Order: sequence, then structure tokens, then C-alpha cells
Amino acid sequence: MENFKNLEPLKVRKMIRKGKIKSNTAGMCHGYVQGNLVILPKSHAYDFLLFAQRNPKQCPILEVSDMGSREFAKMAPGSDITTDIPKYRVYKKGELYGEFDDIKSFWKDDFVSFLIGCSFTFESAMLDEGMEVRHISEEKNVPMYITNIQCEKAGIFEGPTVVSMRPLPSSEVVRAVQITSRYPGVHGSPIHIGDPQSIGIEDISNPDFGDSVDIKNKDIPVFWACGVTPQAVAMKVKPEIMITHAPGYMFITDMKNQKLSVL
Amino acid sequence: MENFKNLEPLKVRKMIRKGKIKSNTAGMCHGYVQGNLVILPKSHAYDFLLFAQRNPKQCPILEVSDMGSREFAKMAPGSDITTDIPKYRVYKKGELYGEFDDIKSFWKDDFVSFLIGCSFTFESAMLDEGMEVRHISEEKNVPMYITNIQCEKAGIFEGPTVVSMRPLPSSEVVRAVQITSRYPGVHGSPIHIGDPQSIGIEDISNPDFGDSVDIKNKDIPVFWACGVTPQAVAMKVKPEIMITHAPGYMFITDMKNQKLSVL
Repeated sequence: MENFKNLEPLKVRKMIRKGKIKSNTAGMCHGYVQGNLVILPKSHAYDFLLFAQRNPKQCPILEVSDMGSREFAKMAPGSDITTDIPKYRVYKKGELYGEFDDIKSFWKDDFVSFLIGCSFTFESAMLDEGMEVRHISEEKNVPMYITNIQCEKAGIFEGPTVVSMRPLPSSEVVRAVQITSRYPGVHGSPIHIGDPQSIGIEDISNPDFGDSVDIKNKDIPVFWACGVTPQAVAMKVKPEIMITHAPGYMFITDMKNQKLSVL
Repeated sequence: MENFKNLEPLKVRKMIRKGKIKSNTAGMCHGYVQGNLVILPKSHAYDFLLFAQRNPKQCPILEVSDMGSREFAKMAPGSDITTDIPKYRVYKKGELYGEFDDIKSFWKDDFVSFLIGCSFTFESAMLDEGMEVRHISEEKNVPMYITNIQCEKAGIFEGPTVVSMRPLPSSEVVRAVQITSRYPGVHGSPIHIGDPQSIGIEDISNPDFGDSVDIKNKDIPVFWACGVTPQAVAMKVKPEIMITHAPGYMFITDMKNQKLSVL
């Protein structure tokens, strides 16, 4: 993996396109924004975009492609959305149909692609300050939980907020709020600090998605809205077809993480 | 006007609804967010929402109503979009059709209403720090200019960015950037500082909209993206019908200005 850390995003996307990279994208192209992908038919695009407008913490949209376009023209000029992610998931009527290296054979001219901000960006800012991000230290996936915080409904889309959790020593909680507040385009500030039960999480050691991580004696669990939310919400609607990245296999953009900071 | 400064928004909206307030809303309901209104038929709503996603500084959307709903349910529960602004403008095929006290007779069930953030919010934050906001001191409208900065195109919507200008002593420019950066939901940080010509403004004393204000010897002109942009862009598309607030006659919400600050 070390080889890809210092490569330019364009180069890595081309290697992925040619099948030369098949691994997950964690750690690749250090400093550049990686995003979640959701592809939906145009008929669902308005409601989904409205859902994002109403739930910017759960669904911070970085870019929306023109209908039928395979390119994220602003954040990744020259990209090909159908090939530039190492692993995709195709859902039909809300059920996982399969995982694929590319989605060329599924592509339709009425598809709209949404690139959604991801916590990699703010974690990078936390790491840059020397903060420990537990699941990264433990080389695990971040733990994610379904909460009792309902998203704002938008058209056909509705459902509970999924959160990711990072345990922090109490001395670092304030700073973590400050750092992540600067990135409203990638989930922004935490939506909850402390007591898991008050947001409907019964067993913090048993996440709904991802891996359980060690919570040390004086740690406080800090919760951020998670990009899994829009996927989960879209799945419930059971669209004819929906395509996403596979977890951990993200779309790598040409934009530096710091550029997403509002201050 | 003094009477309305300290009234609750709900009360003022009801007075407007009953025709008891007919003046512009500047200074009313101190501390509460006022917004620009754009109403379009559903057929244009996706492109307009996409335009906002791609041009968040020009078109910072605070709320989008459900199709056919006359209420901004989140920011102003109990509001009636068709009556709660003192003066509306109705455009047909891009031409001003007239100004009206209410738009009940124009309402259609396929209308979508967009509430767009307005510089009143960040000006209020500047004033709170004792900063002079020139056009307010001079009791004028803010000067606005059409620039050579093109918006990102979205479907049928495209056009140049309109900016508002506030002259500031050089000692206050940095602070103004900091203050307004905290409000990405209401145009955010300036998009240009200094030389008007480099953004296509030939004569700073001759704004395209609003009033000219005094620029003192050591003042630096500071430019922010302006909510007139989406209206100007939408007008060019010549939709069958478009309804907006009349300039200065804003929609008053129940949300405090400070709540829109990200930090």
C-alpha cells in the first residue's frame, strides 16, 4: 500500500481503471479527498438531492454529476465513474445484487452520480494534530451505529441517522469539535458526545456496521453523522437500481482535504 | 419601524399576513434570520437545487418546501409562504408581471419554494462586533455588481455571479473574512477583496443594482456572492412563472442568526 500513498490521484485512478489496483483505498493519495458514491436513476435524483439539502451532516454532497455523465468534472477532471473505484456494489430493488470491479455493463444514460463527503477528510485533520483515531490505530473499520435520531424526510427518502464513533480522552473532545466544525462539507462537527443510550445505542461494544474498538477507561465516545446514512435510506426505498462503492473502496478526487475547510 | 424590532417573528408574520405591515423588513425581529424567496414550478426544481449545490456561495439554500406546501416547516412552523411577505414579485417568462401583497391567486400545487440565505445574517454579526457596514450607516441598499465570475452551470441554469460590496478600512478586512467564514449558509467568506476590475467591475461608483455608497480614502472594497445571483440566473431561463420577494421585503424565520454559524 505504501506505494500508493504518495501518488497523484489521477495516476491512481488510472491504475484502478486498468485493474492494477484492487485493494481498498485507505491511505492512498495522502492529503486528497476520498468520497462515497451513490448512483441513482434520474427519477430519484431530486428527492435524494433534497434529502441531502435537509440532512447536510448525514449527507454532505461534494459533487453531483450531470445526468448520464460518467465524470466528476469538478473534483476529478478526466475521471470515469464506472471504472475508477476498485470495487462497487450493485443493488436491485434494495437487495445486494453483487460486487463488481467496474460497472460499465450496468451504466444507463439516466444515471445521476452523487459524490458524498467522507470522514477520511476530518480524520486526516485530526491525525495531523497528533490526535489518536482509535480504529486507525487498531487497523479496523470505524464502528457505526443506527441511532434514534430521525433524518428530515425528503420525498420518498426517510430513515434513522447512522453515526460513526471515535473514543477520545476527555482532554481532546473540545479540540475534536473545533477541528471537525471547520469541515461542514464532510459531516462537520459531532452530532453527539457521551452517553450512547440517549441516542438509542444500547450496546456500544456491538456496532451495527464496522468493527468494535477499544474504549479506554477515561474515554468519551464522540459521534459523527455517517455517510452510510444516505445509502441506508436509499436502500429502504428499494429503487429499481442503485450503485455504490463497496465499503472502504472510495472514489479518490484531485481535491486536497484542506480545501474543504471553511476556516 | 422601531415597534417591530423586538417582536417575535411569528407575530410579525401574522401582522404581515393580515396586511398590518406593508413596509420592507429591514430591522424587523432583531437577531432572526431573514431569507430570499424563489418559487418555481417543480419542473425546474431539480436544476435549481443542483445549481445551488454547485454554487453554494451564490445560492445558499436554507430550506426547500415540499412540492405544493405553503409552509417553511423547519425554519418557520405555521408560516404561509403565499402571504407572509409584505411584497412579492411575479415574473412570467422572465418579465416582471407585477408586484403583489400576496400571491394566493397565483399559487399552484406544483410550486416548490426555496428560502435562500441573505447577507443580513452576516451583517448582523459584523455590526455586533462594532464594525461599520457602510450602506447601513448611509441608510441605503447594498451596492451590487454583475461580475465576470461565471457560476457553475446546472441543467438550464447558468450565468454570472452577482456580488454585493462593503467598503472596509484595511484594518478590518481580516476580521470580516473571519466573521463571515463562520456563516457558509449565508454566502460565507468574501469571494474577492480589492481591485474591482479583476472581477469585471469597471465602475465601482455605478452598481448594477442597489445604491452607490461612499468609499473612503483608505477603504478596501470587499465583495461577497449575492443572493440576487440565483434570481438573475433563473430569470434568464424565462420560466413560465417565477415568484420572488420584492427587494428588501424578506421572509422572516424563527431561527436566530447565530444558529447558522458553523463555529
